[in-house]
Amino acid sequence: MRTSQYLLSTLKETPASAEVISHQLMLRAGLVRHVASGLYTWLPTGLKVLKKVENIVREEMQRAGSNEVLMPMVQPADLWQESGRWDDYGPELLRLNDRHKRDFVLGPTHEEVITKLVANELSSYKQLPLNVFQIQTKFRDEIRPRFGVMRGREFLMKDAYSFHLEQECLEKTYQVMFDAYCRIFDRLGLDYRPVIADTGSIGGDASHEFHVLAESGEDDIAFSDASDFAANIEKAEALAPKGERPEPSQELNQVATPNVKTIEEVANFLAVELTQTVKTLLVQGVTEEGEQVPVVALVVRGDHQLNEIKAEHLPQVASPLTFATDEQIKATANCSAGSIGPKDLACEVIVDRSAAHLADFVCGANEDDAHLTGVNWQRDCGEITIADIRNVVEGDPSPCGQGNIVIKRGIEVGHIFQLGQKYAQAMNCAVLNEGGKNQTLTMGCYGIGVSRIVAAAIEQNHDKYGIKWPKAIAPFEVAIVPMNMAKSARVKETAEALYQTLNDKGIEVLFDDRKERPGVMFADHELMGTPLLLIVGERNLDEQKVEVKNRITGEKSLIAIDEVLSLFNE
Amino acid sequence: MRTSQYLLSTLKETPASAEVISHQLMLRAGLVRHVASGLYTWLPTGLKVLKKVENIVREEMQRAGSNEVLMPMVQPADLWQESGRWDDYGPELLRLNDRHKRDFVLGPTHEEVITKLVANELSSYKQLPLNVFQIQTKFRDEIRPRFGVMRGREFLMKDAYSFHLEQECLEKTYQVMFDAYCRIFDRLGLDYRPVIADTGSIGGDASHEFHVLAESGEDDIAFSDASDFAANIEKAEALAPKGERPEPSQELNQVATPNVKTIEEVANFLAVELTQTVKTLLVQGVTEEGEQVPVVALVVRGDHQLNEIKAEHLPQVASPLTFATDEQIKATANCSAGSIGPKDLACEVIVDRSAAHLADFVCGANEDDAHLTGVNWQRDCGEITIADIRNVVEGDPSPCGQGNIVIKRGIEVGHIFQLGQKYAQAMNCAVLNEGGKNQTLTMGCYGIGVSRIVAAAIEQNHDKYGIKWPKAIAPFEVAIVPMNMAKSARVKETAEALYQTLNDKGIEVLFDDRKERPGVMFADHELMGTPLLLIVGERNLDEQKVEVKNRITGEKSLIAIDEVLSLFNE
Repeated sequence: MRTSQYLLSTLKETPASAEVISHQLMLRAGLVRHVASGLYTWLPTGLKVLKKVENIVREEMQRAGSNEVLMPMVQPADLWQESGRWDDYGPELLRLNDRHKRDFVLGPTHEEVITKLVANELSSYKQLPLNVFQIQTKFRDEIRPRFGVMRGREFLMKDAYSFHLEQECLEKTYQVMFDAYCRIFDRLGLDYRPVIADTGSIGGDASHEFHVLAESGEDDIAFSDASDFAANIEKAEALAPKGERPEPSQELNQVATPNVKTIEEVANFLAVELTQTVKTLLVQGVTEEGEQVPVVALVVRGDHQLNEIKAEHLPQVASPLTFATDEQIKATANCSAGSIGPKDLACEVIVDRSAAHLADFVCGANEDDAHLTGVNWQRDCGEITIADIRNVVEGDPSPCGQGNIVIKRGIEVGHIFQLGQKYAQAMNCAVLNEGGKNQTLTMGCYGIGVSRIVAAAIEQNHDKYGIKWPKAIAPFEVAIVPMNMAKSARVKETAEALYQTLNDKGIEVLFDDRKERPGVMFADHELMGTPLLLIVGERNLDEQKVEVKNRITGEKSLIAIDEVLSLFNE
Repeated sequence: MRTSQYLLSTLKETPASAEVISHQLMLRAGLVRHVASGLYTWLPTGLKVLKKVENIVREEMQRAGSNEVLMPMVQPADLWQESGRWDDYGPELLRLNDRHKRDFVLGPTHEEVITKLVANELSSYKQLPLNVFQIQTKFRDEIRPRFGVMRGREFLMKDAYSFHLEQECLEKTYQVMFDAYCRIFDRLGLDYRPVIADTGSIGGDASHEFHVLAESGEDDIAFSDASDFAANIEKAEALAPKGERPEPSQELNQVATPNVKTIEEVANFLAVELTQTVKTLLVQGVTEEGEQVPVVALVVRGDHQLNEIKAEHLPQVASPLTFATDEQIKATANCSAGSIGPKDLACEVIVDRSAAHLADFVCGANEDDAHLTGVNWQRDCGEITIADIRNVVEGDPSPCGQGNIVIKRGIEVGHIFQLGQKYAQAMNCAVLNEGGKNQTLTMGCYGIGVSRIVAAAIEQNHDKYGIKWPKAIAPFEVAIVPMNMAKSARVKETAEALYQTLNDKGIEVLFDDRKERPGVMFADHELMGTPLLLIVGERNLDEQKVEVKNRITGEKSLIAIDEVLSLFNE
């Protein structure tokens, strides 16, 4: 491709609207352009990267035995009513009417369409297992689209669905998909981790997220420093401290703490370690019958954070997690939020494992401007429930039993899921089993955010000059940059001949034939992250050489013109 | 691919809902499945074909120097308001609201998005011409989606747009696109014709449609039998008959024609040729200022049909063409519709060239149940306007000057268009020209119905057993059909080894490893249109041979197993 025929569209300035580096660089390098909130046009350079990601994903899905299909973006509401998600899905599901006033949605995902298809097409266990995927445009009406294509509204996704008679078969395919995902992210050249994930509201039994590690990631991931354990912070178990809880050694004592608000201020005021204090939070409770009732107390150590997902999974706690109102706090604890404590509290008390291991601790006195010191669970607080309800922190022992927790940030780019029978049951997706009886199928689902990968790759691979693409997804393999082509016939001839040679070999080459200063050209190619530059200048032509510059290492060297092809030998 | 791991989904019965053969075969061969009116899921076999079409289109667009981009399907209303199409586009434009109640549309086409992009990105004539394309999902809310993917609502389209400073440059690119389209349809292996097309309401100056010839086509195309002239019937000029109009030789005479309704009945009743009669139609007129006024008379020979598109283009006729009401007919002609004639008619009379060439003709008398005979234009009818307002018919002289008209039916699969400044002007798409002045760009647009091509290919290539794919777009190159694999280890071994060999060479092979009777397997492969079958049976294995069956020619022959690869030499 010649730049003169190409929609290059690089920007010198960083657009003010772009918060994260990948969004900034995708705009500056001419990869995407904003059309409306969360909606982007992919320019030629961006689309080249997107297509490379798409092709690697497709090849590995096919290699893993998945069948490619293509489902419509516009889906009829009746399928969503049948699955129950017409009511359950929030406003991220964009609903619309056609000219006949019939209800449709823009597909944020395709469980309904594929489950209905399989229910219609398959009749016998002999046709199982079945694994299908598509690479298709999705729409989610995010309330606040941001970070460019990282969290856009219209985006390209690979979604796959597998269908099985038995859990055992699902688990086998789940492992095949896990391995395929590893191959995909390996080939993409990204530093990634599969992490154990919470299965959330979608239901199901087992789940892994695939994260690209990057400081700007939205998710916290807990790793072991001594094994390959990795889990989403929502899912990483905080183990109980080892050993027995110390015996009480202090008397219970109430102290005035006027105008002392936060737990840090309390510890400071009383000159105790934060680890010797507890925080008590009141949240909405729920009965065994599922009825919402006020309230349940959640207690964590002063230096720990409540993990809302873990708390939500408790049978006593309403989901989604909802904090008690000031009135409810007053009614239960007879004080304001800052002075609640577990002693004599008129509700069930659920205590985190670490908080439950304390003796002689500090907590609120259930009286405004007062705290208790020397508190002990059994002696002072009556019956409590102990549970894992906090976030792990760095240094915690890893739940895998080896080493300690390290926390890094990641960008979720893939998610695999043992979905179970949720959709198959709702949509009557069954086949005749070997015994001739109708049997509901069990499903897995497997997603990859294809367009998000492009942004994640940039978050992980850039410097102050621009993008440093992994080889497999660079928009061009090489750029030819001639110095003063207008003035030197020799430079022009050599550059044209090189372009011809590389093109003929099927190498993706961008020939910068603009009438721009060398500085402008170099800046553009560094911004776009082309892995190799071939710089054709008068200076080296006497020796029949051109300069090679490597974008990743910054290395420069001279190479004989007739050896240039050897750079692309692999 | 093994059929045991593949979503084959062939049907024995023809679904009652499918009217045309391509829709029937696409359902029966397991290419697509209906999701909702005009919405389909592409099953693996169908998607393989769709992707092959897509790839050929992409390769030829790239070869022609077009830059691939990807624009969003969901587009903000403000762009459509700016172009004026928010108001002009009918209910085929699906409008929707996002969660913030902002207006959006599902893109039926992308002139607005691309024109805005180019207006933003380009500033200098040096960046021109620019040619961009995308292969992307479109939505048109057809009132009556039908014929499967031939006229669906969600479909895959290649749309391209070119931008130029001058008409001359547009014409050059138009020719480049014309040639690229020919290469695309040549490579697809389809019998097609580029035909001169009407530019319709979209505006613009020159236009060609590309039609796949098929008896089931919706469009009539006029060809010359002696040149490569081809035009959409809407656009094919009907030349004036040669020579002078004959002199009057009969007296004008009024005859009673009670209960004689149609022009055929009139000719019959009066024992004259249909070619010696004229039909007169009254339609809404329009003033030079564009005001609608009653009415204008349109006269064609009794054996000819009015061409509504040609009539609409007349400055005196309202567009869209609207027939006069019974009241207007009564007021103008003082009779009912069946007895109108051009003599003494109280409105402008526009006469088709062929009708205008008649002498001593028969027409309505502007009196119920009466006609005139021996009518002559100049002598009896006063001033008339002569114009080309009829459809050409077979045998007409070709407007190209060579040969005569032949009419065939076609399926429109491509359309190229010199769009002019319609969008560029509305959306302020201009650059600085060489003189440093702002100059509005001129545009071309170029569409191909990618998913429709799959259906059109089937309409043109099938027999009673199923689809006969052109080689370039067959879902598989070859299928291996083993006879009684369960009973013969030798058959199984040979089939498996052949499968391995072909797979290793990158040949797209479907290995039918189902436990089905041979008849079922053959029927499925003929239905799916796989070009070659390799039949592995005990009978031929003593000689180390397998049978080859060609789907197109029906030819069968034996080939040595170790020579099978030679079938795929090209």
